[in-house]
Amino acid sequence: MLKIRKSLLQMEKESYADDNAVIPEGAVDCTQGSNPYGFYPTVMDVVRNADENAVYHYPHGQEIYEEIENLWKDYAKVGRGNIFLGDGSIGTLYAINNIFEESGARALSVAPTFTDATNDYKTRGMEYRYVEMLREENYKFDLGRVLDELSEEDSILYIDNPNNPTGQTIPTSDIEAMIKAGAEKGVAVIIDEAYGDFIPQDESATKFLDKYDNLIVVHTFSKAFGMAAMRGGYVMASEEIIGHINKMSNPYCMNELAREAGAEALRHPEFATSHIDDFVKSNQMVREVVGNKLKMAESDDRVPICLLYHEDTSVNLAPMLAEAGLMAVPGGEFDCLNQSTVRVRMPRIEEMDKVVQAVKKVNG
Amino acid sequence: MLKIRKSLLQMEKESYADDNAVIPEGAVDCTQGSNPYGFYPTVMDVVRNADENAVYHYPHGQEIYEEIENLWKDYAKVGRGNIFLGDGSIGTLYAINNIFEESGARALSVAPTFTDATNDYKTRGMEYRYVEMLREENYKFDLGRVLDELSEEDSILYIDNPNNPTGQTIPTSDIEAMIKAGAEKGVAVIIDEAYGDFIPQDESATKFLDKYDNLIVVHTFSKAFGMAAMRGGYVMASEEIIGHINKMSNPYCMNELAREAGAEALRHPEFATSHIDDFVKSNQMVREVVGNKLKMAESDDRVPICLLYHEDTSVNLAPMLAEAGLMAVPGGEFDCLNQSTVRVRMPRIEEMDKVVQAVKKVNG
Repeated sequence: MLKIRKSLLQMEKESYADDNAVIPEGAVDCTQGSNPYGFYPTVMDVVRNADENAVYHYPHGQEIYEEIENLWKDYAKVGRGNIFLGDGSIGTLYAINNIFEESGARALSVAPTFTDATNDYKTRGMEYRYVEMLREENYKFDLGRVLDELSEEDSILYIDNPNNPTGQTIPTSDIEAMIKAGAEKGVAVIIDEAYGDFIPQDESATKFLDKYDNLIVVHTFSKAFGMAAMRGGYVMASEEIIGHINKMSNPYCMNELAREAGAEALRHPEFATSHIDDFVKSNQMVREVVGNKLKMAESDDRVPICLLYHEDTSVNLAPMLAEAGLMAVPGGEFDCLNQSTVRVRMPRIEEMDKVVQAVKKVNG
Repeated sequence: MLKIRKSLLQMEKESYADDNAVIPEGAVDCTQGSNPYGFYPTVMDVVRNADENAVYHYPHGQEIYEEIENLWKDYAKVGRGNIFLGDGSIGTLYAINNIFEESGARALSVAPTFTDATNDYKTRGMEYRYVEMLREENYKFDLGRVLDELSEEDSILYIDNPNNPTGQTIPTSDIEAMIKAGAEKGVAVIIDEAYGDFIPQDESATKFLDKYDNLIVVHTFSKAFGMAAMRGGYVMASEEIIGHINKMSNPYCMNELAREAGAEALRHPEFATSHIDDFVKSNQMVREVVGNKLKMAESDDRVPICLLYHEDTSVNLAPMLAEAGLMAVPGGEFDCLNQSTVRVRMPRIEEMDKVVQAVKKVNG
């Protein structure tokens, strides 16, 4: 008998990441969280013009650090020692969780939230709790209940903002209230802004970095920057926290091509928010055709994802929508949600017809 | 006070990976473990001809699994469920260690060995022990002492073969004896073949995979395949072990370009061993000019790395060699070695003159 972690033996991993998913012909694929408008075109040139060092030498690109510093310079003093480069936001979250894990360590989050992040607490055998966003409140985030639950015994408070799967954004005043409460209770507050690049920078928690050293902000190149295949992401935090992450982590995280392409993407950050009007329009098109059997959870129309739920909690919504031509992520893969819910990522505006037709059909 | 792991607060990480290392002009750089002859040329074509999916979609390439299965088909039945793709061998080792970590879990290795692997046991707060390879035995691996030390209380036995930093290879009969002893004691045996692709496949532990389900074999694209910048590596093990790793790990490990380029590299596996004659010649050139103040530890001449040590254990060897025009990895960064030792990676044969001159000068 091998000595596998006990917490692992007891659990099945749930993740909606599945590299074998098949999209039926003619259906619109709304499962991936990436920007449906792709990536900034010169990123492709960086890849195609890569030299041998982008294959051969251990990752060494430093320009990406400068571009990150430059991108956020109006919001915080982010220096080289405040940045950790990782393999996508999942990779960076694992690296963060690693420095806090300890027998009995406690983590708090909300539900629903990004499943892979919170499953990691469970697989590590940490004590994981969440504050439920309630169907009867249209899954709206409730600051008061999170603050009430947050304890001095917690090591981590994890919040994704915008929230995955609902696409709602939490006001920066609420974000600061959580960071402040965490600071008072010795809790590291992780604000995962995986979807944060879709909205303006001044709504990012980055502006609180100079003020609170318990704050950890996570970004990725996989969503608004449309570069999921390359596996790039970054953490911004105090030098102390980044120092601890570096002690536990692979010194060669984020491959060289991702570093070079990521630096290029950050030279054109306006791309990430350039389709806000399309997303607002798309979300409103969906809002117009729900209201009977289907409802849309609290959401920010500028963010391309939303959560739809069926009035009948016993139906299996994802296959119903798939049959109507819309592939979405089954909500059952998120804590607190069941099969009567789905996450929809708005496609390009020209494909919204398919979404509207499918939603309309199921809404009845 | 944030609740950082106690084991982390107490330690400094030592790693010889440093992205800021500067090579003096005219010196020959023998610090990196990569193949000095680069990579198979068509790998570059794969990168330069990449399509948008290699940037945009979550990593999905499946051909690399087929190429790995195909590469090892004469040695073991390696199917899709026996393979985990990771970010370099460091990334795969972290993923493996993750499934065994638990309060009080014990890991055994030898010293010197690949530092980043065993430092990970320490940072995780596992109980880490090593069997020392002795200077008075020219740092030769001793099977008997490893078997004597291996205990039923151990979770992991980690062996890199060929050994880093000495470049010695362990006979497959000794490898099998350790795997067998591990199987009897419920210990997972990790054979890290990061440098294993430089030597023929029938010396790989892969041929024992069908027989022992406690065996974990690790490979990387960073060394003999010369693709360190891309961060690719893979684990081969039982479906049970791979299943556990998948439960704990990022489902999108190994970026898409690394998958595509890695598949191409594995279509030309002969490249990895194609410079054996050069390495044998290079090692012998060094052997001919040591023997006075400098000695070469037990080594396999087919492997491009070796360990040099000075008779005077109080000298700082790396700067002495650097001054003589040879940049090597200071041995002090490995457990059990001090500053009077260095690891040298043979450069291309046409640069061996510089190595010979530097070694000669310091040897006296």
